[in-house]
Amino acid sequence: MKKLLPILALLPLLAASNPKDSSLVRNLFEREFNQGRSYSDLRYLCKQIGGRLSGSPQAEKAVQWAFAELKKDGFDSVWLQPVMVPHWVRGDKEKAYAKVGKKQIELSICALGNSVGTPEKGLEAEVLEVKTFEELRALPTEKVKGKIVFFSRPFPNNVLICGQAYGNTVNQRSQGPIEAAQKGAIGVLVRSMTHALDDEPHTGATNYRDSIPKIPGCAISTVDADELSKLIHENGCVRVWFRQTCKMLDDVLSYNVVAEMRGSENPNEIILVGGHLDSWDNGEGAHDDGAGCVQSMNALRLLKQEGYKPKRTLRAVLFMNEENGLKGGLKYAELAKANNEKHLAAIETDAGGFMPRHIGFTLPQDSLGKYKDWEKLLAPYGVQNFDANGGGADIGPLRNQGTVLIGYHPDGQKYFDIHHTAADIFEKVNKRELQFGTVVLSGMLYLLSEYGLR
Amino acid sequence: MKKLLPILALLPLLAASNPKDSSLVRNLFEREFNQGRSYSDLRYLCKQIGGRLSGSPQAEKAVQWAFAELKKDGFDSVWLQPVMVPHWVRGDKEKAYAKVGKKQIELSICALGNSVGTPEKGLEAEVLEVKTFEELRALPTEKVKGKIVFFSRPFPNNVLICGQAYGNTVNQRSQGPIEAAQKGAIGVLVRSMTHALDDEPHTGATNYRDSIPKIPGCAISTVDADELSKLIHENGCVRVWFRQTCKMLDDVLSYNVVAEMRGSENPNEIILVGGHLDSWDNGEGAHDDGAGCVQSMNALRLLKQEGYKPKRTLRAVLFMNEENGLKGGLKYAELAKANNEKHLAAIETDAGGFMPRHIGFTLPQDSLGKYKDWEKLLAPYGVQNFDANGGGADIGPLRNQGTVLIGYHPDGQKYFDIHHTAADIFEKVNKRELQFGTVVLSGMLYLLSEYGLR
Repeated sequence: MKKLLPILALLPLLAASNPKDSSLVRNLFEREFNQGRSYSDLRYLCKQIGGRLSGSPQAEKAVQWAFAELKKDGFDSVWLQPVMVPHWVRGDKEKAYAKVGKKQIELSICALGNSVGTPEKGLEAEVLEVKTFEELRALPTEKVKGKIVFFSRPFPNNVLICGQAYGNTVNQRSQGPIEAAQKGAIGVLVRSMTHALDDEPHTGATNYRDSIPKIPGCAISTVDADELSKLIHENGCVRVWFRQTCKMLDDVLSYNVVAEMRGSENPNEIILVGGHLDSWDNGEGAHDDGAGCVQSMNALRLLKQEGYKPKRTLRAVLFMNEENGLKGGLKYAELAKANNEKHLAAIETDAGGFMPRHIGFTLPQDSLGKYKDWEKLLAPYGVQNFDANGGGADIGPLRNQGTVLIGYHPDGQKYFDIHHTAADIFEKVNKRELQFGTVVLSGMLYLLSEYGLR
Repeated sequence: MKKLLPILALLPLLAASNPKDSSLVRNLFEREFNQGRSYSDLRYLCKQIGGRLSGSPQAEKAVQWAFAELKKDGFDSVWLQPVMVPHWVRGDKEKAYAKVGKKQIELSICALGNSVGTPEKGLEAEVLEVKTFEELRALPTEKVKGKIVFFSRPFPNNVLICGQAYGNTVNQRSQGPIEAAQKGAIGVLVRSMTHALDDEPHTGATNYRDSIPKIPGCAISTVDADELSKLIHENGCVRVWFRQTCKMLDDVLSYNVVAEMRGSENPNEIILVGGHLDSWDNGEGAHDDGAGCVQSMNALRLLKQEGYKPKRTLRAVLFMNEENGLKGGLKYAELAKANNEKHLAAIETDAGGFMPRHIGFTLPQDSLGKYKDWEKLLAPYGVQNFDANGGGADIGPLRNQGTVLIGYHPDGQKYFDIHHTAADIFEKVNKRELQFGTVVLSGMLYLLSEYGLR
């Protein structure tokens, strides 16, 4: 018998999908593809509202729109969670030039989110290129002092998952100004976070520390980053001038938007699906994360329209301020704790409106065999596999309340081509790919509502 | 023991990938992503050569380019297979108007491939809209005679696989002019074969039968197809005028391009990977099927560069004339038979340069369990599963020689948005997605070379 144990351990792999479940998910698919609103909702959010950075009038408009739309759906409850959020504004269109002798070469830049501005007339200094913090830290302070540090480490090409390339390089953006200022630099240029070679600068949040001078930071397009490296390589001394008038204003009141279908059997066990309603200001926040918002809204809506009565409580949550503060996610978890709510599982959609691929869980890989039948049930809609890469930004703070975090991971090869750029617009989202995401998320809500976590 | 049989039957599922195999495939991946040429080859094919319909100077240029490039790679043999192909030319830009009373509404059309032209001054008649051949056949001949038949059956939305939607509707394009002419119609309009709602007409081959009058056929964009249906619904009698000067010229000599790495152990067992070098004239043939051509070339090239010595004979084949005649595929199979060649397996890539998804075999579904370790080995590069949907157009004629046909199926949700249109251009192909396809195909060549079919 002992020898058979490894074989018997495989038995859950055999678990066939329940026909009732596959038929319900098929109904969700038919409903979304025949009369679903994911795509038209996204069009509204992108074209009638547009980029909606925390604290902006557009963010406020998005909150009111989502609240009103969800109200119309007749869910058990729809409410707003007040939260104070940072209010950063970009100001004038940013400008930059590289200067070599008498030659001026225009560079395509944009300010990093949360960055301070330059002096009104711009900032000019010699550029110092480095690839890593280690390289910068090893330099004598007098080599860095008074200069503009150019962090130029590119996305590695040979990674399977683009998010890993991002993880490998994004500290240049998020911590670059702190590291550079510690060495006496007066400004920072960061190579845009993307595999693409083009003229789009990619914004994104940067951070400061109170004890360290706040120096302005901007992102430079990959084409111009390559150009600047070349100029430095060929000429030695290259000066850069750049100007940005961005600034941080006082915090303002904003909201998370929550819609709920109450559970009939275990109402105290909450299953959440959500994305973030705020977006960067330079594009329309289509893939990041308008897609996740309309998918979350419509995942719940499909179940309501289907007449499904959930066993556990289901919530769609549109978080505010993921991009430059995470105040909405923190507030949500704070309120959950204060209200003694038990979130069994939370699904976050913040990786674009592309075809579904992977669903990650904060569970050990060897426990995922128990979900083979769910995997199989969702495979026709694009789910390749469940894996142990769970997590998420807005849902992150729920983790220490015992919540299993579920990351929804659509195919991510193109995401960073448009991430945080002016090119993140409605037209870049494919209707059917977006809809498949809605169906998968709706299916996950249904399965978690019916069966909980195993 | 009897009860254990179903469990023991699962044992192949456990087959772990051979570490030597996964390490070789990982090397192919690193090689393609660090220094691979798939993307630059595609740029050349699209931008320096462009659309390359059989018989055109561009098709000839593409043959010469591919032959020269493969020659440089130092494969064991590179050769051309002469084949006579049809030579259809589009002529002037097509024009069409719907006429309601004194109103003229411009319609976006293009001639169907192989279609005859209209009279020099165009063709005008009342339009008769039908959704199916059954509907058309049920009409009395006098209702159809002298009219332009408008086939308007749309892609169904609620299909999982877009190729099924195409299969469900494409007879309107391929057989519409025959069906309509049999009822005495004088021209045909066909709703474009796509889920997308836009202004692009989608060309594609149509057919005639010698005994039936050849009447001109054109595709109309989906937006204008909807508009035309609306006009007919609102007004009853709508006339359409259209003009196209396309025509079929005499057949011309062209070529398939073949590159070969000879097998060291079983040289008489051939494994083929291929796509079609010809494309429609209106775009650049980027996804259809420039992608498949450069992936096939580079799948073989990566193995050569890796220093791999194949056990079985490997061939990359670029077929001519898939789009409007299939003469290249037929010639290839004819020569294979004449030369007593044994093709163990043939892989066809003709579904776009998107992320890998499925690999289909002309094998029974229940025999695919034997390949679980290959599936697992290719999963990191995007392969969701192997299935029984094997087949292909150019490799099709090999089937009755006992060859297993393998269809390479990248994610297909966007393919028909640009299929056979002016929008099928290089810029629509994502570099990394294209490269993953090359890696998967190269990996498949390697596995089939090492292990044959199980």
